[in-house]
Amino acid sequence: MKNYKLILSYDGTDFHGWQRQPKKRTVQGTLEDSLTQITQKKINIAGAGRTDAGVHAQAQVANFKASLSMDDDELFRALNSLLPQDVRVISLERTDLDFHARKMAKSKIYQYRIVNSTNISPFIMRYVLHWPSSLKVQRMREAAPLFIREADFTSFSSNRLLDPVRKVTRSELHKKGNEIIYTVEANGFLRYMVRTMAGTLLEVGKGKLLPEQIEALFRKKERSLASPTAPAKGLCLIKVNY
Amino acid sequence: MKNYKLILSYDGTDFHGWQRQPKKRTVQGTLEDSLTQITQKKINIAGAGRTDAGVHAQAQVANFKASLSMDDDELFRALNSLLPQDVRVISLERTDLDFHARKMAKSKIYQYRIVNSTNISPFIMRYVLHWPSSLKVQRMREAAPLFIREADFTSFSSNRLLDPVRKVTRSELHKKGNEIIYTVEANGFLRYMVRTMAGTLLEVGKGKLLPEQIEALFRKKERSLASPTAPAKGLCLIKVNY
Repeated sequence: MKNYKLILSYDGTDFHGWQRQPKKRTVQGTLEDSLTQITQKKINIAGAGRTDAGVHAQAQVANFKASLSMDDDELFRALNSLLPQDVRVISLERTDLDFHARKMAKSKIYQYRIVNSTNISPFIMRYVLHWPSSLKVQRMREAAPLFIREADFTSFSSNRLLDPVRKVTRSELHKKGNEIIYTVEANGFLRYMVRTMAGTLLEVGKGKLLPEQIEALFRKKERSLASPTAPAKGLCLIKVNY
Repeated sequence: MKNYKLILSYDGTDFHGWQRQPKKRTVQGTLEDSLTQITQKKINIAGAGRTDAGVHAQAQVANFKASLSMDDDELFRALNSLLPQDVRVISLERTDLDFHARKMAKSKIYQYRIVNSTNISPFIMRYVLHWPSSLKVQRMREAAPLFIREADFTSFSSNRLLDPVRKVTRSELHKKGNEIIYTVEANGFLRYMVRTMAGTLLEVGKGKLLPEQIEALFRKKERSLASPTAPAKGLCLIKVNY
């Protein structure tokens, strides 16, 4: 038995998210089907982050176990030639048998991109939120680090979990030309957590929420009181650290 | 009557080219339909370059004439909100009544992009030709300027025209990381001309054609003797000069 570690890049636009679902085109399903076609074995692949429908990945990490006689490089090439163009294997290597892409991830980095101008290039429209109205970017920049903490993030998630405590170690916003880029790193994320945090920062940018009100949102621990979830298209899984 | 000049950007992947065709999704058709919906008038739009199916544009120029009471800025915003995401109006302004986007264009600049590596990001797959095998880039770089001339380009086109003479003033190839970018400027282009020139340079890169053989291709003036047409997806109309 060998354990393979993959680094994957995908355009999430036409996928119903990472996780396999019956009769839906998902990243996990597409990868497993291609691997099964190549190896003639049933393959179960585990991904570090279960990205939602429409969310992209620059470097998702996944692993699967199989007894294959195939050369690694041959498998890498076969997989990329079989996979559709919107998902690419960036690297494939054999790793320790106890490696698990999700369970062993120490932290994940996500980015949320907003283009804040009247004009937008059609070449990036699939990967950013287009926001033509003006935004108070300085306030958004001040608010972003308020998410850095180890805390119950229920107010910024769609569901209640037994253990809703996550540790956010990086939360920063910067502007590059017309683009606002929000970067967040945590040991784990609740469902819709990054998109709700991005949505909250957008409320700050619109002037509907003051940075100092974020503290109160944390205390309420009720999803309905927090901000709208920002659209999936602007979100991308950038890196997984082990 | 007013004459409007538009600068447009589009992702050509899901369009059957620029030119209006019955029952097909084209850029011209999409624009005319949106303009008609906004103005309640039949609008004919002229584009500087009749890009083929799958070819992109960073800055296509177009014009149309109409008697509208609408404010320019209002029209600009209405148009972008009605148009699908893969075509964007970058600017809209009123211009001289005798301006014609195609007839008055002095030159057009196209770029052909090739990613020459095993790995490719899914975020650019729609906009480049992916070429995983090795290429003799230095030879391609030497061959590119051989297209700079005023000559009969029939050998590098799909059809015979009464006037097949075009003047190519710039034809250069450079490498940027894993990407090979071919840039060409001419006073006009025959059908498939840039893609056939790019296809010829690829033959040079593969070692199947020597740069010095390009001269012979020009002399033959027969399409069948020249190189295969490179795929549409790698081509983009960059700029139109007046």
